[in-house]
Amino acid sequence: MAPEIELITTGAELLNGSTVNRHAQWLGHALEQRGWRLLRDTTVPDDTAAIADALRGALSRCDVVLVSGGLGPTSDDVTRDVVAAWAGAKIVMHEPTRLQVVEIYRTRNKPLNSMVERHALVVEGARVLVNHHGLAPGEHIQKNDKHAILLPGPPREFQGILHDHIFPWLDGMNMGCHSRRQWFQTAGLGESDIAALLNAGGLAELKVDMAYCAKPSQVSLRVQEIAGHPHDYDRALSLIRGKLADAIYSDGDQSIEQAVFDLLKLRGKTMAAAESCTGGMLGQRITALPGSSAIFNGGVVAYHNDIKQNVLGVGADLLAEKGAVSAEVACAMAAGVMKLCRADYGVAITGVAGPGGGSPEKPVGLVYIAVADAQQTNWQECRLGGGRETVREASVLLALDLLRRRV
Amino acid sequence: MAPEIELITTGAELLNGSTVNRHAQWLGHALEQRGWRLLRDTTVPDDTAAIADALRGALSRCDVVLVSGGLGPTSDDVTRDVVAAWAGAKIVMHEPTRLQVVEIYRTRNKPLNSMVERHALVVEGARVLVNHHGLAPGEHIQKNDKHAILLPGPPREFQGILHDHIFPWLDGMNMGCHSRRQWFQTAGLGESDIAALLNAGGLAELKVDMAYCAKPSQVSLRVQEIAGHPHDYDRALSLIRGKLADAIYSDGDQSIEQAVFDLLKLRGKTMAAAESCTGGMLGQRITALPGSSAIFNGGVVAYHNDIKQNVLGVGADLLAEKGAVSAEVACAMAAGVMKLCRADYGVAITGVAGPGGGSPEKPVGLVYIAVADAQQTNWQECRLGGGRETVREASVLLALDLLRRRV
Repeated sequence: MAPEIELITTGAELLNGSTVNRHAQWLGHALEQRGWRLLRDTTVPDDTAAIADALRGALSRCDVVLVSGGLGPTSDDVTRDVVAAWAGAKIVMHEPTRLQVVEIYRTRNKPLNSMVERHALVVEGARVLVNHHGLAPGEHIQKNDKHAILLPGPPREFQGILHDHIFPWLDGMNMGCHSRRQWFQTAGLGESDIAALLNAGGLAELKVDMAYCAKPSQVSLRVQEIAGHPHDYDRALSLIRGKLADAIYSDGDQSIEQAVFDLLKLRGKTMAAAESCTGGMLGQRITALPGSSAIFNGGVVAYHNDIKQNVLGVGADLLAEKGAVSAEVACAMAAGVMKLCRADYGVAITGVAGPGGGSPEKPVGLVYIAVADAQQTNWQECRLGGGRETVREASVLLALDLLRRRV
Repeated sequence: MAPEIELITTGAELLNGSTVNRHAQWLGHALEQRGWRLLRDTTVPDDTAAIADALRGALSRCDVVLVSGGLGPTSDDVTRDVVAAWAGAKIVMHEPTRLQVVEIYRTRNKPLNSMVERHALVVEGARVLVNHHGLAPGEHIQKNDKHAILLPGPPREFQGILHDHIFPWLDGMNMGCHSRRQWFQTAGLGESDIAALLNAGGLAELKVDMAYCAKPSQVSLRVQEIAGHPHDYDRALSLIRGKLADAIYSDGDQSIEQAVFDLLKLRGKTMAAAESCTGGMLGQRITALPGSSAIFNGGVVAYHNDIKQNVLGVGADLLAEKGAVSAEVACAMAAGVMKLCRADYGVAITGVAGPGGGSPEKPVGLVYIAVADAQQTNWQECRLGGGRETVREASVLLALDLLRRRV
């Protein structure tokens, strides 16, 4: 059996715009850590023919297929029937589950209705996977060397049953591929800059599996060993570390805000943020991390110039002479917010996010970022593309990266 | 041609746990509004055989297939090759795109490298879909009555090209179903509160297709006409408007920040924000809207108490007596930021987002929001659940909704 798994997610809500399908990301991460690989995710509506077709395709490509959703009691819950038809088995009432469902209703003081017991219907011969987070159990159905595993759709139940029953089974097979893999997160370089740098260093000649994922001003690299070529893998890692050097902010899958948080915490330092065009995004990102009050004092959203002047103490003459989008004003904002919030570092962002507000001298996408501490202030000019939200996201990333390099 | 579309999303990052695939949800929503239906989403890695297999399957089921990702310059960008093989066409350099890419590099002062021009490679004979948000263009390739449409993976580029080129084409075919439908966005009521209110008004007896989608402190309703029952549809709309009244902040698919923006702009008023636990999220959300400087002056991220005191002027005695998470401090923050930023309205949020920091008196999820103007200050106590990020998002929503009701 190859250490490969496919997922089929079922549900009209995943295709009509109401719900984001997060199962593939969660499962992919969990499998990756166990040496298994998620080969494909197929999302289909609650439709017998579509689920049957997806199941047939998935089982033709790999031996273990997970199917989520469609185990409830209503008319659109048809997954169980599809798998029973594949297995050539009947649907039967699973008495221990039925008793459990009745007991749950009793302890919650909820009236039983005729639909409730349908949660306890299973494919005959299935290994029934107890659900500690909901009503319908999971089911593991084997036919010859093929395994179909049915899981409820709600994330807590889906994840709970995988943790309780399926991951131990996968781990027990001890068949995961043991090829090594390594992530790198970089800031400030484009995807083609990185590819050009690495290819100039000879990466293209090495037998390793490379994956790139580009976001605004940020590229993730994943390097995976190819069986039989361990030295190429080692050489690829040292080539990447050597060529990308300080552009790498994490050699795991950390976010830039987590990298900054960890560094500041390690050094016992605090920061504050003065934001113009990003309007609070930097603060929002940092404070998404639990415990961020240890390193983040607060900040000022200086969207209008009079706030830059009156709250942050940027000189009126400086604003008039250089304009709000300038290196000088960015530096004055960084120093101002550092003092105002009594932080060790002040970070500032000022720029033209667009779509309006640009001029020939100061076009849309021109952003100045600055980092101040008690000794000195550094700044950087960025010329960003891709629309308002992309400019804002890249500005936050680059400002946090400037702080990281400084700390 | 049936009004049905399949999506193929490509990228190792979608299956190894690093990225959530949001394309299906976004596209499903957009297609739904045009009377088209997203039939299936297949997520595969950047692998020639897997993409080719998924494309073959999708084209056997429907006439229009969108493929996202794999149009970049690196070795794992193979989508173009797969589609060229299907179409029996060569890959060629698209000169207008190449010139555009070179120009973008020039204006950003970035050095050109050998990889960059690869963004301009296209399938010969394709309709090239100009990308206003990035480098690689989209491509529309027709073979007999089948359409393969290639789109870049980054959401901004994916969405931009669909908006600019593909939705107009779909709309032009005028094949969508013509039943009427209407969205409503509500804040502050739960899904079951709404269902109970509407059923008490007789909604259950009307022949209309209802869909509810609940997010933190927010419910979207979708009402769709059932063929042959136009009067029931009309009655359902007026029932919903009557019963939900002021809880409806949009009868389209507007966001709460857009609703607030429109109202403030209409009245010629401005706002400022004082945020504690949300760390800048309210400012970030408002300033995501182009032109927000007309209504948003700025704000203060008062994460630490000394910023509440020294910058916003919240009394030290008030902070000591009532605590930072209190109605009184929320009101003082709102009034303070209104004065500091010289705005017509001040909005404040202070609460315990968790996971730490809770106590029996002030548990995780307790949040106070306040809105001040020159005359008076209103506040509201919220008890929210669902984890740090959910608490923060619901707080921003409810604070903006409190402001909306006031304006």
